[in-house]
Amino acid sequence: MQQVGQQARAASRLVAQADTATKNCALEAMAQALLDSRAALQEANAKDVAAARSNGLDEASIDRLILNDKVIDGMAEGLRQIASLADPVGEISDMSYRPSGIQVGKMRVPLGVIGIIYESRPNVTADAAGLCLKSGNAAILRGGSEAIHSNQAIAACVQAGLRAARLPETAVQVVNTTDRAAVGELITMKDYVDVIVPRGGKSLIARISSDAKVPVIKHLDGICHVYIDDQADLAKAITIADNAKTHRYGVCNAMETLLVNAAVAAEVLPPLCKIYLDKGVELRGDAAALAIVPQMTVATEEDWRTEYLAPILSVRVVGDLDAAIDHINTYSSQHTDSIVTENYTKAMRFLREVDSSSVMVNASTRFADGFEYGLGAEIGISTDKIHARGPVGLEGLTSQKYIVLGSGQIRK
Amino acid sequence: MQQVGQQARAASRLVAQADTATKNCALEAMAQALLDSRAALQEANAKDVAAARSNGLDEASIDRLILNDKVIDGMAEGLRQIASLADPVGEISDMSYRPSGIQVGKMRVPLGVIGIIYESRPNVTADAAGLCLKSGNAAILRGGSEAIHSNQAIAACVQAGLRAARLPETAVQVVNTTDRAAVGELITMKDYVDVIVPRGGKSLIARISSDAKVPVIKHLDGICHVYIDDQADLAKAITIADNAKTHRYGVCNAMETLLVNAAVAAEVLPPLCKIYLDKGVELRGDAAALAIVPQMTVATEEDWRTEYLAPILSVRVVGDLDAAIDHINTYSSQHTDSIVTENYTKAMRFLREVDSSSVMVNASTRFADGFEYGLGAEIGISTDKIHARGPVGLEGLTSQKYIVLGSGQIRK
Repeated sequence: MQQVGQQARAASRLVAQADTATKNCALEAMAQALLDSRAALQEANAKDVAAARSNGLDEASIDRLILNDKVIDGMAEGLRQIASLADPVGEISDMSYRPSGIQVGKMRVPLGVIGIIYESRPNVTADAAGLCLKSGNAAILRGGSEAIHSNQAIAACVQAGLRAARLPETAVQVVNTTDRAAVGELITMKDYVDVIVPRGGKSLIARISSDAKVPVIKHLDGICHVYIDDQADLAKAITIADNAKTHRYGVCNAMETLLVNAAVAAEVLPPLCKIYLDKGVELRGDAAALAIVPQMTVATEEDWRTEYLAPILSVRVVGDLDAAIDHINTYSSQHTDSIVTENYTKAMRFLREVDSSSVMVNASTRFADGFEYGLGAEIGISTDKIHARGPVGLEGLTSQKYIVLGSGQIRK
Repeated sequence: MQQVGQQARAASRLVAQADTATKNCALEAMAQALLDSRAALQEANAKDVAAARSNGLDEASIDRLILNDKVIDGMAEGLRQIASLADPVGEISDMSYRPSGIQVGKMRVPLGVIGIIYESRPNVTADAAGLCLKSGNAAILRGGSEAIHSNQAIAACVQAGLRAARLPETAVQVVNTTDRAAVGELITMKDYVDVIVPRGGKSLIARISSDAKVPVIKHLDGICHVYIDDQADLAKAITIADNAKTHRYGVCNAMETLLVNAAVAAEVLPPLCKIYLDKGVELRGDAAALAIVPQMTVATEEDWRTEYLAPILSVRVVGDLDAAIDHINTYSSQHTDSIVTENYTKAMRFLREVDSSSVMVNASTRFADGFEYGLGAEIGISTDKIHARGPVGLEGLTSQKYIVLGSGQIRK
């Protein structure tokens, strides 16, 4: 791993200086290589899937592992989309003249070497390679052991793309060992790795955060809330609360807890819960919610802290906006929370006081996403406050330096 | 320390919501309290100074410890300047409409709880309290044991200011123990501390970085360079190189190594080195520099890696811009580096390719400073790439969250 680190550091200097056309050329060539290598990719993938089955991996995990035509097309398309995004590197902003006569501003620069540690989905290999390259960084990718053959086959396409653009192949290195110690080394190589982005379950991220000696951009869980205010437009409220929960169940920006103002609970909960029940969503409510919708079971303290990622919803009736904000700031995972209200002052208070990476007014939590926000692809959604927060796209993988343009000024 | 942490976390919620007028009122009241408590501050300080003398502390350290009238006036003035800065909290930027109809942008938010660990200068207590408060954060301050009485006396003034503005006194807590274990706890209390800013010598920062479980904004050493290009205006070059080295010796943005293009070395080094020698600057050069200025001693490999903070300068003659950039990216501490040139292309290459927190063209490295950049006061100069880079003012002590304004939109 030390050698991988050294190579990445050396490559990072070249990638940081690569111009936009060169990087885009590599991304296009990677996309083409993936499409041209469909057979080889699926052959490698078949080995992983067979091993997963004989190791008794569950069906959901096997499903995430499979590289079918659609997934391969998606990887290629993703790389082409990254090529079409504006290059963040070298972007100059905030230039202003100071009284001394110097002109000061900022220039966006790559972070250097990014380590990405992820679980079964092999398509992350292509996405992460593309995002790191376009943002001018070298990448060290460490996928799950169950996807080792698929990841190596994708790596070959990535490397072909780098070669085609005359960039160093070490700009993206896919670690080809399933040895767990490699992760331990990767997250402590301060000299060679500038930041770690773990993508995976809560336990993976907790383990990495606790052992890392290198900064970690964390994507934790999504316990997202929708609060229906007493001054909500109830038609909007029902549509948003329905979409936030039922559009997709297994995603981090799905609503897990619905908060309803007591003054409108009796009016809004019956029609809304009928929608949920018709769609097979299990409802767990507090006493006040239960009194209105008897099909609910009793929610426990544990429910408020749970990311179901499933057709289950906890429902709580709250007295006012303060109680809603208190609940959210206590139980939310600081991912995404939304208020439905027509009241200006309450909307502004919610925006200001809810301490989450995305805070919304009259919109579904499902919008918390790099594409929906216009960032293009994302490497994850950060629930940290340090460095990057919310969807992390190209900008989140860069830093800024100050630049000073003078004409001979000295400090008096 | 756990209790200090809990109190800080609770206070941080209130400070984050405090309006600008309230925070400014507290800052003004703190400044007034410092001026009104001059006698008490100096009495407390006298205890520290006496103890320092009897413990045999060196004169430079004792000098930094002393709270004379000028230092007290400076602390009060600093707090008033922070009051006059724009409030970063709640600032909304980059709002744009997306095809879905939602409007997405960012809102600047406090980080939460900031732990600051610093060495002897007690005036840091007032500066740090002011910056953290204005940026909407709660602060836990841990000063040097040699300044314990001074820091507690300053803390009393800070607390009086918070009380006057009806803000919780726990918004700024000055740790009143000299127990070293307190630092160990502070930098590992992930639940209560969002970021640590160490201010002090290299060994303090190295120790904290290696033990911290909380993100650290590092201010490391300043091995700053000036490169005089063969297409430099030599009059500008001499003025800048003189100022960068001799304006102040003990500061992190002073030049420590001068790089000179071989084509102009024989012309520029003699008059420039005469200035240095007249000012008593010791010169250490490579063979080529020595051949031109025989008063130099021979620079060793160690010299290129040394932050002298003293009237010593290492000088190296380089063949071209590439060699200059290579030297800087190898030996610079990524603090501040400057090129003197009239050539557009070389200026742009230097700006782009030098990987330091401040990169300058035709200006003295001494400008790398929060006030000179228009940020107002700073808590330090970050040589990290993660989160904040360069002078860290109010903005560096904040994060951003995404805000979404909708009118009932759902994800299709």
